[in-house]
Amino acid sequence: MPIRIGIIGAGSAVFSMRVVGDLIRTKELSGSEVVLMDIDEERLQAVEILANRLIDEFGSDLKFRKTASLEDAVKDSDFVINTALVGGHEYLEKVRVIGEKYGYYRGIDAQEFNMVSDYYTISNFNQLSYFVEVAKMISKLSPHAWLIQAANPVFEGTNLITRIMPDVKVVGFCHGHRGVFDIAKRLGLDISKLDWQVAGFNHAIWLNRFIYNGKDAYHMIEDLRDEHWKPQNPFDDQLSPMAFEMLDFYKMMPIGDTVRNSSWRYHRSFSEKLKWYGWPWGGADSEVGWQWYKEILKSIVNIVESLASFAKSSRDRIFTRENLEKFARGSDFPEEMFDEFFAIVEGKSGEQHIPFIKAITTGKAERLIVNVKNEGAIREIPNDVVVEIPAIVDDKGIHREKIDPPLNERVKKLYLYPRMMRMEMAVRAFLERDMSYIFEMLHRDPRTRSDGQVETVINEIVNLPENKKMREHYDMK
Amino acid sequence: MPIRIGIIGAGSAVFSMRVVGDLIRTKELSGSEVVLMDIDEERLQAVEILANRLIDEFGSDLKFRKTASLEDAVKDSDFVINTALVGGHEYLEKVRVIGEKYGYYRGIDAQEFNMVSDYYTISNFNQLSYFVEVAKMISKLSPHAWLIQAANPVFEGTNLITRIMPDVKVVGFCHGHRGVFDIAKRLGLDISKLDWQVAGFNHAIWLNRFIYNGKDAYHMIEDLRDEHWKPQNPFDDQLSPMAFEMLDFYKMMPIGDTVRNSSWRYHRSFSEKLKWYGWPWGGADSEVGWQWYKEILKSIVNIVESLASFAKSSRDRIFTRENLEKFARGSDFPEEMFDEFFAIVEGKSGEQHIPFIKAITTGKAERLIVNVKNEGAIREIPNDVVVEIPAIVDDKGIHREKIDPPLNERVKKLYLYPRMMRMEMAVRAFLERDMSYIFEMLHRDPRTRSDGQVETVINEIVNLPENKKMREHYDMK
Repeated sequence: MPIRIGIIGAGSAVFSMRVVGDLIRTKELSGSEVVLMDIDEERLQAVEILANRLIDEFGSDLKFRKTASLEDAVKDSDFVINTALVGGHEYLEKVRVIGEKYGYYRGIDAQEFNMVSDYYTISNFNQLSYFVEVAKMISKLSPHAWLIQAANPVFEGTNLITRIMPDVKVVGFCHGHRGVFDIAKRLGLDISKLDWQVAGFNHAIWLNRFIYNGKDAYHMIEDLRDEHWKPQNPFDDQLSPMAFEMLDFYKMMPIGDTVRNSSWRYHRSFSEKLKWYGWPWGGADSEVGWQWYKEILKSIVNIVESLASFAKSSRDRIFTRENLEKFARGSDFPEEMFDEFFAIVEGKSGEQHIPFIKAITTGKAERLIVNVKNEGAIREIPNDVVVEIPAIVDDKGIHREKIDPPLNERVKKLYLYPRMMRMEMAVRAFLERDMSYIFEMLHRDPRTRSDGQVETVINEIVNLPENKKMREHYDMK
Repeated sequence: MPIRIGIIGAGSAVFSMRVVGDLIRTKELSGSEVVLMDIDEERLQAVEILANRLIDEFGSDLKFRKTASLEDAVKDSDFVINTALVGGHEYLEKVRVIGEKYGYYRGIDAQEFNMVSDYYTISNFNQLSYFVEVAKMISKLSPHAWLIQAANPVFEGTNLITRIMPDVKVVGFCHGHRGVFDIAKRLGLDISKLDWQVAGFNHAIWLNRFIYNGKDAYHMIEDLRDEHWKPQNPFDDQLSPMAFEMLDFYKMMPIGDTVRNSSWRYHRSFSEKLKWYGWPWGGADSEVGWQWYKEILKSIVNIVESLASFAKSSRDRIFTRENLEKFARGSDFPEEMFDEFFAIVEGKSGEQHIPFIKAITTGKAERLIVNVKNEGAIREIPNDVVVEIPAIVDDKGIHREKIDPPLNERVKKLYLYPRMMRMEMAVRAFLERDMSYIFEMLHRDPRTRSDGQVETVINEIVNLPENKKMREHYDMK
């Protein structure tokens, strides 16, 4: 059943190659066309070369086309995947530096229950604005299309889009729930015999069900406590002291990026981070862990460039483990990350975008972890707030699973509620064009010592040349 | 229709005299008996003397009896009013001093959206425990009786009682909503032509309706902004810069004690408090404002004692404006507070206890502002959380008014939700016998700089001799 998929931000090579890798393995979608869209022509070109090479080497009749035009990527598409990070990591870094100058360690956006350094909620006007632009374009040109929200912040983004464009079919995806599989693997469990659920918000999900062979296996997680635990990389935190500290307090296991999003107490300083997320990085969101990640990103760009120029000059196979390893060795790519990189080639990216597209297109049901409006799935969370929950997807749409057992009160009242409040502030600021929400977020920040500090740091960020549109949106001369 | 009312904590003379004053004016309840209960025999005796003198002077066939036994006050009562503050202001002060020693200005219980110095939410074990003791006693001895919760914290207290003793009929009362009348008076409006509503939680209520002569009059409140505004006393904040600052951000007017309960930003230091609550006190909850209040309380005790001994030795009328003024002049009682004090005699206390009892007993409907389970009154607040809303009360019970227009999203999401979270932590700590909630409240406090600070301050408070029962409850050796 050939369809058309637009990928916005396709210059992000790893993401695009994952999608392409998964697509090649999905025979039901053969004959489909993928429109790769990015404003970075050079990176996009490399992706196009490699995507074409991938289908050559694996034999598939997918078609790729690249474009710099959003309209082009949306028009006639059945699915639009948005993975773009407007302004890139450079902008994030610039804003983080300003925050730290005025006493906000790791930047003003690093806040309780939202410590993830990959995106912003307060200073992210251009990103949120682009989310809306994409949704509006879909509504205008391809109103039947699904918008697949892969770009962060997924939580703020999906809530913004559903409120501003209620007619656009939007679903958010993340792979954070795979933390459940890490736990299962470490316990030596056969995942096919595991009956599990997670629920919450994106990057704020909790293991509510963990049944193995028909028996509750939650207690087995206790066996994974290890006082000699050491992380393999900064993102390796599913079994960190932090995860168990959260389990102890919230009485449910935090899954995936949720572990990064603990309270300010655990992020107060590098030494606190080290204590909870392990030596030597103190987790992904410390100055050291994030530096590591930025270097990985750089290595990936290098690998992708080398691969693309090799592809142009040689007819040798590229997508074999040996050849990929050779390229990785030529860069600073850490060995322990290689498997994840290689998963592209194996078509086992763990991403849910293609399985979702397949289920919707063919009607063959898939169980996925989706970000959709709550509509009663999590009790005491408003119906219109987007939640991350398991669902069965088929050609009739997304069918929410019953969350059973429900999330406990600690998780809901002490974790999801405050996280939801930050989302509300960010989304409402945008919708009401009212910066007072943004000021309020900082006034309630434990790092704030005076009104002047808030005034100064926000002014400096808002007055960055990148934030011209933000100033206009909020009517700040 | 003679009934029996038990007043727990009746040694609080002003409160008791208000109730008695109101009761004397309520002919429908003549022949009723009031059991005054307190463990402070001396103060209770003074109240009994004055209550009897009041009915002598005004002619009424009420009967008063004093007791030191809770059982005695509850048995055969139709209504039990609990106004007791276990440990008194001395305990509050002791705990506040410990808090300040470890960097918690105004004490650990002074937190965002809960700055009121009259009671504690974190360090109030004995108070909460007594609430439960009273409710259990009612359930055992007078299961038909209403428990009227006047003692603070009303919000935490009513939530605790409804969860732990779902069969006890409990209602909470406060007079904070009278801030609406202050506003109306200042605008020169005839209150009988005013159609108004407030909604929220106790000490967290907002003016959602303000219609005068059939027309929306909300905009008139703007006329009360006054840059030369000066408070008459520390509690005079309904028209303070703080109230208007909250109106500006939340887009609804905070009413009564709600103005005291702003965010930490406005309470960071005495100079901030001065700025928002006015010179020279910086509001009731600053070190200066609270000192003023403690002196008032002392004056009242003096006045009550003098009045009581005068009553024993003389047959002159006591409850005339002239005589009361004479007594007040003999103490440090500030002139501007006299009217409130005199209201006792006029039977216009503004308290809702007797109107409630009358409505329930006689079936003559009264409109009151009650603290009862939400049950859908405020959307997006869980059904089982106690809210403060208008209701019609009659012999069939409490009939919640429809909150119209509803509270806006800012008030709900940015104010009520965080306040509710503190209640949840305090109530759940008690119910689950788990101190980790209390620790968590401090870990999330902007004044906390280290784990050790939390550990030390809580240990010192928990180890006070007054907190023996608390240590047992939480199984802390």
